[in-house]
Amino acid sequence: MSWIYALDLLGTLVFAISGVLTAIDKKFDLVGTLVIGFVTAIGGGTIRDIMIGNHPVGWLRDTNYIYIVTLGFLLSYFFKSNIIRLRKSMFLFDTVGIALFTTLGIKTCLSFKLSIPVCLIMGVVSAVFGGVIRDVLTGEIPLIFRKEIYASACFAGGIVYIILDFFHLQNDVSVLISILVVFLIRYFSVKRGWALQLNE
Amino acid sequence: MSWIYALDLLGTLVFAISGVLTAIDKKFDLVGTLVIGFVTAIGGGTIRDIMIGNHPVGWLRDTNYIYIVTLGFLLSYFFKSNIIRLRKSMFLFDTVGIALFTTLGIKTCLSFKLSIPVCLIMGVVSAVFGGVIRDVLTGEIPLIFRKEIYASACFAGGIVYIILDFFHLQNDVSVLISILVVFLIRYFSVKRGWALQLNE
Amino acid sequence: MSWIYALDLLGTLVFAISGVLTAIDKKFDLVGTLVIGFVTAIGGGTIRDIMIGNHPVGWLRDTNYIYIVTLGFLLSYFFKSNIIRLRKSMFLFDTVGIALFTTLGIKTCLSFKLSIPVCLIMGVVSAVFGGVIRDVLTGEIPLIFRKEIYASACFAGGIVYIILDFFHLQNDVSVLISILVVFLIRYFSVKRGWALQLNE
Repeated sequence: MSWIYALDLLGTLVFAISGVLTAIDKKFDLVGTLVIGFVTAIGGGTIRDIMIGNHPVGWLRDTNYIYIVTLGFLLSYFFKSNIIRLRKSMFLFDTVGIALFTTLGIKTCLSFKLSIPVCLIMGVVSAVFGGVIRDVLTGEIPLIFRKEIYASACFAGGIVYIILDFFHLQNDVSVLISILVVFLIRYFSVKRGWALQLNE
Repeated sequence: MSWIYALDLLGTLVFAISGVLTAIDKKFDLVGTLVIGFVTAIGGGTIRDIMIGNHPVGWLRDTNYIYIVTLGFLLSYFFKSNIIRLRKSMFLFDTVGIALFTTLGIKTCLSFKLSIPVCLIMGVVSAVFGGVIRDVLTGEIPLIFRKEIYASACFAGGIVYIILDFFHLQNDVSVLISILVVFLIRYFSVKRGWALQLNE
Repeated sequence: MSWIYALDLLGTLVFAISGVLTAIDKKFDLVGTLVIGFVTAIGGGTIRDIMIGNHPVGWLRDTNYIYIVTLGFLLSYFFKSNIIRLRKSMFLFDTVGIALFTTLGIKTCLSFKLSIPVCLIMGVVSAVFGGVIRDVLTGEIPLIFRKEIYASACFAGGIVYIILDFFHLQNDVSVLISILVVFLIRYFSVKRGWALQLNE
């Protein structure tokens, strides 16, 4: 198992946990909670795949994603209070998750011979639209439209990845650097209260 | 016309009526009401088909579904009060509908050589996501996440169907038994106020 | 560049501007605003393409759409007050946009050999679902379900287009007449306060 695949599963796990915790807070029932865990974890990649015509969508072909989401569900359910105390590690894994989802999304789109701007956009979509669907289904205005430089960090990391890929850097290294870029931007943005607000 | 196809159309009709009644309650205009009727009736199967790559999605290839939804729209419009009095029959048909949509969804996914857990999930998606889209479009938090053992009953029926299919039972019989399972679970859950609540 | 392609880009621009203005009003951040601009402009065609199996979806194959949406974003950002003063022209372009998106959507579906009712429905979906997604993502009940004869005008224009196409009228002329029909219906409906309300 490559480290990229391992991180992908880890990112999926963290996304699933974040979805399940949201659903538990909203007092959803068992199946509703599972559904929210799922759409949070695999929603972004699903939207990317159905838009570029990558059928059947990724997680339908690799049952590991289903097991990982189910694991995230069980962990959140039985160790809820412990997980909430791990907020800092969650932030770390979540950031690694969106960074990785962005680069993997871009890589998939490049292999479909799509143009650079399209690949960049679809990469960010892969990373953030799981959370968007989670928020829509739980009756919230999507968080990414309001707080933190979340999607913006993905954009930056995606641009770095595309540049490195253009210069034929080894893929593992490009991914690693892109993850670092996303992490640093997000870390400092939260630390210093950065925001890209348009008005006022 | 097979009895399964007949029940499928009947389920579609009931789903359309439930969507149209919701939209009328919300004072949507004519076209808005039609749209809600449509997405409620065919939304779940549509999401399944675009995810597994079954193109064009089912109802685009069989115009009967459009006629059935339109019929549901007209019935709801002209006989609104009568239909509301038929609530018990509606509950029956609706339950038959979700049960049937689950098994038909699983069957479609099995024919696409997808793994068992994927087929099960996609079966439930076929059955319940029409209602989810209806609720999102009408500004409600999806009902299935809050009330009744709705999706859970589909899961149970889906598992029964997959087991029976595994033992090569005749498809008609498997479908019938699965429908019964879903119906019994849902009937008793409403009757006795069952709920699969995670917290409190 | 054909006048139809030019109008298509113009319609996309106006849709993007309408999305961006909505997002600015809601105080979304930079990327959130861009996303709303995008989904408003290309959401309808995207849903049509993924449902009929036209992969990858249209705007992924023609980067001009991305540039146009980005242009709409920049225009809205730097000339917000000027654009708001252009409300009347915006109404004109927006109406041309939905009319054109309807006919282009129908044309695409006809080329996929789908039945007439399906093509009509998918044409209207192409025109109005970008706005529906915009409203869902910004936490509003979709406007088209509540105000103006918006989708209804698209239906009427679509029916006219299908009839003219059936009689083998030259496509440019059919499109032009359909646009006129949509425009007239919408113009008089706003002027005279028409509405297709179902109850009371």
